[in-house]
Amino acid sequence: MINFSEYIRNIPDFPVKGIQFKDITTLLKEGDVFAAAVDQMYGPYKEEEINKIVGIESRGFIFGAAMAYKLNAGFIPVRKPGKLPAETLSEEYQLEYGTDSLEVHLDGIEAGDRVLVIDDLLATGGTAQATCTLVEKLGGQIVGLSFLIELTSLKGREKLSKYRVHSLIQYEI
Amino acid sequence: MINFSEYIRNIPDFPVKGIQFKDITTLLKEGDVFAAAVDQMYGPYKEEEINKIVGIESRGFIFGAAMAYKLNAGFIPVRKPGKLPAETLSEEYQLEYGTDSLEVHLDGIEAGDRVLVIDDLLATGGTAQATCTLVEKLGGQIVGLSFLIELTSLKGREKLSKYRVHSLIQYEI
Repeated sequence: MINFSEYIRNIPDFPVKGIQFKDITTLLKEGDVFAAAVDQMYGPYKEEEINKIVGIESRGFIFGAAMAYKLNAGFIPVRKPGKLPAETLSEEYQLEYGTDSLEVHLDGIEAGDRVLVIDDLLATGGTAQATCTLVEKLGGQIVGLSFLIELTSLKGREKLSKYRVHSLIQYEI
Repeated sequence: MINFSEYIRNIPDFPVKGIQFKDITTLLKEGDVFAAAVDQMYGPYKEEEINKIVGIESRGFIFGAAMAYKLNAGFIPVRKPGKLPAETLSEEYQLEYGTDSLEVHLDGIEAGDRVLVIDDLLATGGTAQATCTLVEKLGGQIVGLSFLIELTSLKGREKLSKYRVHSLIQYEI
């Protein structure tokens, strides 16, 4: 059994003073640990039919694309504004100061799609919630969400209470 | 045999007027086509020992991470400035007007690593060349590069002439 937290590097004061940044690149560079993390992020959903993996820009692309490959599922990128070239649906979410938004291609999700949402980190849950809203507005069904890391004190899980949420590593910070 | 080019969508005038943008999201959303693309991007290198996959931000993360998962290889992200939290090595490359740079973590590549560099698109080859330089400065060996799409008229392959270069789809534009 791999203790995934041993492969996460803590970087103090990144990107700004006071933040303890959880660096996942020390996990990614160990091939067997990365593969095991992808497998275990999928584990709780292995009885489910899933035909689309939605990955949130940009570290969510890393785990999401590997999982899509594993499942032979379609990979759907959710991106910051202006990055996706075709017609998009956009959803705002709250930042500490102000708002930001995420976009998905209108043809990325079809009615009846069974979707697993993937990102590296669950913090306040704002981006994950906006992503689920985008999927549902396009007729997709959220089977669940899976994260490598969850910062439990930020209570992102409460924002996602109507969904199944799984994380491999929890930090109380 | 899949004709991958059928799954690429052309978007005129994105991100700026005059550019014919090659949208890969229409390929990514077809699970079996995405998986086959990853497999065929790896194909020419399957006799090689490869222990690290380097993916260039951010669409290179999608193909690179899936390939790292497939091979049980480490995944090393090469990113735009300021995104990687630990100590980095940086390399400049030319844009049409001015320069930009890419970064890799100092501990991402170790001496003797056998590296495959992955991105979605080979255009002028500037980012790919900078990426190879970063890997080599850290003591890694470039086994080769693999791209989904190559814009042959931009002659990126000439810049990479000392390396093995493979692409699945070629456009003469």
